[in-house]
Amino acid sequence: MSAEPARTGVVGLGLIGGSLALRLTAQGHPVLGTDPDPSTRAAAVGAGLAVEDGLGPWLAACDLVAVCAPLDVLSEILHRVAGLTDDRTTVIDVGSVKAPVHRLARDAGLGGRFVGVHPMAGTERSGFQHASADLFDHATWAVTLEEGVTDATRAATVVRFLAERLDARVCVLTPALHDEAAAVVSHVPHVVAHLLLDGAEEFADPRVAALLAAGSFRDGTRVAGTNPARTRNMLAENHEAVGRELARLRQRLDRLATAVERGDRTELLTLLEGVAHRAGSVRHADADLLASDEVDAEAVLRLLGEPGSGVVVSPRRRG
Amino acid sequence: MSAEPARTGVVGLGLIGGSLALRLTAQGHPVLGTDPDPSTRAAAVGAGLAVEDGLGPWLAACDLVAVCAPLDVLSEILHRVAGLTDDRTTVIDVGSVKAPVHRLARDAGLGGRFVGVHPMAGTERSGFQHASADLFDHATWAVTLEEGVTDATRAATVVRFLAERLDARVCVLTPALHDEAAAVVSHVPHVVAHLLLDGAEEFADPRVAALLAAGSFRDGTRVAGTNPARTRNMLAENHEAVGRELARLRQRLDRLATAVERGDRTELLTLLEGVAHRAGSVRHADADLLASDEVDAEAVLRLLGEPGSGVVVSPRRRG
Repeated sequence: MSAEPARTGVVGLGLIGGSLALRLTAQGHPVLGTDPDPSTRAAAVGAGLAVEDGLGPWLAACDLVAVCAPLDVLSEILHRVAGLTDDRTTVIDVGSVKAPVHRLARDAGLGGRFVGVHPMAGTERSGFQHASADLFDHATWAVTLEEGVTDATRAATVVRFLAERLDARVCVLTPALHDEAAAVVSHVPHVVAHLLLDGAEEFADPRVAALLAAGSFRDGTRVAGTNPARTRNMLAENHEAVGRELARLRQRLDRLATAVERGDRTELLTLLEGVAHRAGSVRHADADLLASDEVDAEAVLRLLGEPGSGVVVSPRRRG
Repeated sequence: MSAEPARTGVVGLGLIGGSLALRLTAQGHPVLGTDPDPSTRAAAVGAGLAVEDGLGPWLAACDLVAVCAPLDVLSEILHRVAGLTDDRTTVIDVGSVKAPVHRLARDAGLGGRFVGVHPMAGTERSGFQHASADLFDHATWAVTLEEGVTDATRAATVVRFLAERLDARVCVLTPALHDEAAAVVSHVPHVVAHLLLDGAEEFADPRVAALLAAGSFRDGTRVAGTNPARTRNMLAENHEAVGRELARLRQRLDRLATAVERGDRTELLTLLEGVAHRAGSVRHADADLLASDEVDAEAVLRLLGEPGSGVVVSPRRRG
């Protein structure tokens, strides 16, 4: 696969897989999908998708296969997809943790033809009934490749496909950097939302806490409404990076808590101002942009080595 | 003061004091205001408020005086207001921490005629230019009184006034309980927002963190945009309660971090599910409601002793 894929297979038609299939189908791009659940398959047919009954030889007719399944069944599916397809098919996944999936893909024998993908989109909900063609509007997608393993030409094709077909901003990075970043900007914030909510629940008078709850509390605990099993999986799958980031959080918390306990106004202001002064770098990051048609194997490998610059913006084209 | 106050004085016309004066004036309630800053006084006159040049004998003509000033000048102002008024005037403040203000009011000789007030409203902004008559729409107000010190009849009058003039939900509680609750639902969430933002800033590649930042991160760090000096003051003024709550947060964090580091999926799920199951008590607290005209000294003292039930809803009246 070096030009845009001619047909895409979607294995798993939940929130992410269903939305991907709906979006591509709406654009006239040929899609074949499947799901282990018969009622999901029926709903997908009802929504106008072309649906197969299960994994089969049809996968070999897809030059791109997106595996959109939970991590606990991913190993089995990747093995089956590897056996049903050959070198003409590139395989991607859409999970929120990347290093373990790259390992599974290697174990499944996919070698260089596996590319990791993670759409930074989603809702608290799941299932095809919540899927929609516009779920990914304005989303950033991470594309992960392992140097020395992943075929960079395939990765470049996936990047261009996401940028041009899904209007995606794409961030190219290694699985390890992705997982470290996800720990910082997603997994640890989920943990913290739970801890804050826990504090209010354990408060002597939770109804008073609820009555006085300010905007900072409502904002800070919003994602604590996520299904606990899903949050658990996210943390467990990325437990090394999350563990390291939680350790850093504990150090920062200790420093601030000590200043609070001492009522040390000078130290408190120093700590808070330091964060506020640097906030711009995170809140208003202005990444170097690359037009999608500037992306080839060489560009992908270069982006991988350049911190913060691995971004592609879709409809902008060279010239 | 036992009936509704006939005239209210507002000392300090910043975001809170200015909004209070604008709202009461818009309702035809007589208000006299002042501010140490001449340009603020001019802006207030321009907005149709009756403004005095400074503290003076006019305060004695107000049966309610709201001191809306930062804590660092509160002691001086409370002393001056105490000297310029007599037993006919009830004095309130609007600060976000209550126990220290009750101590200052006692030191100023206000005795039973001081009632603590805290509107659970506000924005990241400050100053009269951001004040508005609708800042307090749908807000809950805390009213704090010290048993054995505060005159419960005055507290009841303040509660009714807030409920009926400002359409406030009012939560009646002791200064200590208020400050503990504020630590849990406001001050610690501010700390945590800073810690999360700090984590992303210190990340090896902050631009990657910014690109991948998910909704959980944006929600969780929103209040980290607050002026650091104001956050510092909030934490320093309530440092005992905040310190205790941060210690509890550390314990919860340690428990969860240990489960993450061990990749202990069972323990992780137990911890996350426990929070999720109890979330309803905080997110959907259904307080007992009292109509504003049911509020007298006896009711106020009863509410003070009943956890979670100290709530008044405005326009609802008995019968």
